[in-house]
Amino acid sequence: MTDGPRTPAERRRDTEHRLAHDVDLWVASASDEGTPYLVPLSFDFDGEALLLATVAAGPTGRNLIATRRVRLGLGETRDVTMIDGRVEVLEIDALPAEVGDRFAVRTGFDPRELGSAYRWFRITPSRIQAWREVDELPERELMREGRWLASASG
Amino acid sequence: MTDGPRTPAERRRDTEHRLAHDVDLWVASASDEGTPYLVPLSFDFDGEALLLATVAAGPTGRNLIATRRVRLGLGETRDVTMIDGRVEVLEIDALPAEVGDRFAVRTGFDPRELGSAYRWFRITPSRIQAWREVDELPERELMREGRWLASASG
Repeated sequence: MTDGPRTPAERRRDTEHRLAHDVDLWVASASDEGTPYLVPLSFDFDGEALLLATVAAGPTGRNLIATRRVRLGLGETRDVTMIDGRVEVLEIDALPAEVGDRFAVRTGFDPRELGSAYRWFRITPSRIQAWREVDELPERELMREGRWLASASG
Repeated sequence: MTDGPRTPAERRRDTEHRLAHDVDLWVASASDEGTPYLVPLSFDFDGEALLLATVAAGPTGRNLIATRRVRLGLGETRDVTMIDGRVEVLEIDALPAEVGDRFAVRTGFDPRELGSAYRWFRITPSRIQAWREVDELPERELMREGRWLASASG
């Protein structure tokens, strides 16, 4: 399926392409007592952070509000980008209109129309990993403590 | 993309097909302090429970051993089956040979060859949900407390 493992630079470019163009990802969160939750959601990416929206009172909303921790999976099971991030919670009317508009165009879903039950969740990546198959498990770490280890070129 | 929402019976059949034929799924777990973890793994299904294998000392292994709770995602972000389950942990030599053989054939990966660092994780579903798009969010619950709500026919 692959021609040997990608270089870290290739993985970073593939990851940045997914962040710029994918629409959905998997969102793993946990209660502060250790009950895991997982659900697919749509997202936008502004070059620095990922933006999600969900209801504050749902399992994902409650978990992210309580723990401010999330782990995201982009792509497919044999071509993944995994992102651990810190979560900032914003009221649904707290973002500039153009940010919400951009989210609505990309995802086909405008949470601002759905009222005050929704929140924005802005996720700043702290760690990013990317791999396809077992041969890519070495060098899967592309970002650590919010800093890219992998150069974008090379 | 869809011709209206599937019936519960159709969703159950699609879910059972995935359990019988898919190779990979997403595994969400959490530390007992609420740090989420997510990783794709391969699995087998014997008609009652899902079988996974991973290293006991990795994040997923540690979380499942500590909490015995997992949430699994099968399929793609717009055609998902979500499974909450109870986790049983088994030593890597604790299963009948034919069970391990079957796992190795289906997944292409034989954890018995990788030594005592690995454990089997046998997951009995307690809740199963399945949906594709927003129009399928109603009636997404197919199993509750380990019992199918959806008939397999109809």
